[in-house]
Amino acid sequence: MKILVQKFGGSSVADLECMKKVRAKVTKAVAEGYKVVVVLSARSGQTNKLLEMAYQWSDEPLPAELDVLLATGEQESIALFTMLLHDEGIKARSMVGYQVPILTDTSHTSARIISIQADYFRSQLEDYDVIVMAGFQGVSTENRITTLGRGGSDTSAVAIAAALGSVDCHIYTDVDGVYTTDPRLVPKATKIPKVTYEEMLEMASMGAKVLQIRSVEFAKKYKVPVWVRSTFSEDEGTLVTQEDESMMESVMVSGVAFDRDQVRVTVLGIPDKPGISAALFAPLAEHDILVDMIVQKASREGITDMTFTVSRKDLKRALALSEQVCKEIGGEGVEYDGEISKVSVIGVGMRNHSGVAAMAFEALYKADINILMISTSEIKISCIVREDQLEKAVQTLHTTFGLDGII
Amino acid sequence: MKILVQKFGGSSVADLECMKKVRAKVTKAVAEGYKVVVVLSARSGQTNKLLEMAYQWSDEPLPAELDVLLATGEQESIALFTMLLHDEGIKARSMVGYQVPILTDTSHTSARIISIQADYFRSQLEDYDVIVMAGFQGVSTENRITTLGRGGSDTSAVAIAAALGSVDCHIYTDVDGVYTTDPRLVPKATKIPKVTYEEMLEMASMGAKVLQIRSVEFAKKYKVPVWVRSTFSEDEGTLVTQEDESMMESVMVSGVAFDRDQVRVTVLGIPDKPGISAALFAPLAEHDILVDMIVQKASREGITDMTFTVSRKDLKRALALSEQVCKEIGGEGVEYDGEISKVSVIGVGMRNHSGVAAMAFEALYKADINILMISTSEIKISCIVREDQLEKAVQTLHTTFGLDGII
Repeated sequence: MKILVQKFGGSSVADLECMKKVRAKVTKAVAEGYKVVVVLSARSGQTNKLLEMAYQWSDEPLPAELDVLLATGEQESIALFTMLLHDEGIKARSMVGYQVPILTDTSHTSARIISIQADYFRSQLEDYDVIVMAGFQGVSTENRITTLGRGGSDTSAVAIAAALGSVDCHIYTDVDGVYTTDPRLVPKATKIPKVTYEEMLEMASMGAKVLQIRSVEFAKKYKVPVWVRSTFSEDEGTLVTQEDESMMESVMVSGVAFDRDQVRVTVLGIPDKPGISAALFAPLAEHDILVDMIVQKASREGITDMTFTVSRKDLKRALALSEQVCKEIGGEGVEYDGEISKVSVIGVGMRNHSGVAAMAFEALYKADINILMISTSEIKISCIVREDQLEKAVQTLHTTFGLDGII
Repeated sequence: MKILVQKFGGSSVADLECMKKVRAKVTKAVAEGYKVVVVLSARSGQTNKLLEMAYQWSDEPLPAELDVLLATGEQESIALFTMLLHDEGIKARSMVGYQVPILTDTSHTSARIISIQADYFRSQLEDYDVIVMAGFQGVSTENRITTLGRGGSDTSAVAIAAALGSVDCHIYTDVDGVYTTDPRLVPKATKIPKVTYEEMLEMASMGAKVLQIRSVEFAKKYKVPVWVRSTFSEDEGTLVTQEDESMMESVMVSGVAFDRDQVRVTVLGIPDKPGISAALFAPLAEHDILVDMIVQKASREGITDMTFTVSRKDLKRALALSEQVCKEIGGEGVEYDGEISKVSVIGVGMRNHSGVAAMAFEALYKADINILMISTSEIKISCIVREDQLEKAVQTLHTTFGLDGII
């Protein structure tokens, strides 16, 4: 049995016309002899509409019931789409979360998949040519309806592909692949034919919204080959896969990512002694505030500054917590800077090429861009720059690492 | 554990304001020490909206997928309403069909309930004060989502009341009980404090749309006491229950029902010999056409006419089938009359009172109303009259049997 998983996002199933384009993709795969698992999101706008309603009804909607409500969005999509397939003479059925079943934990509105027992699913694939599965949703260990959080349908698709023996998974979206950077910022950005899971993870965490991070983690763990493609073109798209030698040798840097959603917080004049970092960052972690970059200034006379970045939405809470800790440990005060952005160069090739960081810093220096913070990982170099210099920084790095295409 | 089932229809959950009225009913029952099972329909208009969408998408929507689509309507209601309860500090959870579970057969869009295993449900009632259950839906023996047909939420409510040990079941609607006849036709119609299941069945089958017929059959079978009440008043409503002696003795006729949805078909000049009725009515039954009244004219010279009534929507098919049979058995032809209506007097008291039929016929005669067809059962007398005389017929019978109230 040749199995293929195809996932279509909200804009691909927005209306009847879009759904007919999706049907064309699916019928083509069936004609090629595949048993097809189609994973659908809610029609675009539907999830927001339901959320709005929930917040009209209740100031603080019960998460478990929010999931019951939101899950109707995908249920609607799969029912309508299965009807469409049936009209074309294709033997198809729909499946909601509990029917697969996609077993999750009980963290309502952001549940994590525990397991997928694919035996029943596989037997249904013997009987049907296409199974149309609701993305984004599962059923908890307590038999309640759960949802996987924003973009969770990508994870649903990769998870079912993994459960069916790491079969190919095509993620259809409204862009035709993964680009070296955002083409709206850099018109010379080019589509990458192949990236590794690791690179994709770095790009996803940097706000390249093509794939949900968790879906990439899942794909990496179970070695699911993921193609990112467009519903509205015939382009082959980008393959997200394991690292192989050819990739490492050919390209140093795969892409330049950026993130405007960062704010920098600095705690000033704190005593430089053991336990200070823990005192500061433990409360932030306890309040689910994700700290991205951290830099500690070289200490002078036993006094230092601690600078870190958080997401814009967490700023208010991060400031309150920092100010409290600052008082407790005898610091001078807390200040913040909201006019910064992060730019990163990403590539598994860095592992084998020295000097990538130096090249990046030099290029930014020559372009007269001041670097405010730096952090590096094995396959990524990130710099915080002034917000009004971000665009120039991205373009500079894109050119420096030979990513510009011909326009 | 004192358990109460409360069912609210689409107009009772139409919007936030309505739902707050529903919440008041529920919190009152909780305050009285009940564990409450709330059964909800889809918000009014929602089911029609989903149906419209399905028929936009597909000329002939797959019934199994239509059920997946329609089931979202109730799922939306229960999620929103449970949030509302939670905001009042009431411990509540929702349950969709498969969670209860309401096990049905596989007749999609008009499934029948096979069983309800109430063990899990009961254990959840220990943990929660209120369970908000989706009406209208179940899960089939093949683990597919099913719906119970129009008005199926009444049946859901009575069925769960039966499964929980025939506890009281309050059906809230937009009228405050069962009336002796339609108050829009007869302003002197009065609310009936108590009717038997049998009477309610006859009334329901006559188009008194207060309760779905199947829900009454269910209530009768499991002796579930059903109250019909209004969401928008404090009136006690009508109790539908078993026959008791007081009822039989006091009232001959409980109500006058009518049905405008009848058409009369006559097959003319057919040979009066064994097997003729079967030849005519078997094909109709095979095509799911419900024949209501049947009258065969006294035969003359071995030739007779056969007259019967069917629902307006079935007329076209009934005529085609009748014409075909008529040719085969050598009849003269088929004619129909669309300008007729049915009026019925209903009451378990008839069993102990002779002469009810005679009284009815005489009253109609005195009012100059011609009776076109007659059929009687143990607790019902039905007459077909000309459509333009229906209103007068209903008023005459209502007065004759002492049902007029003071207005």
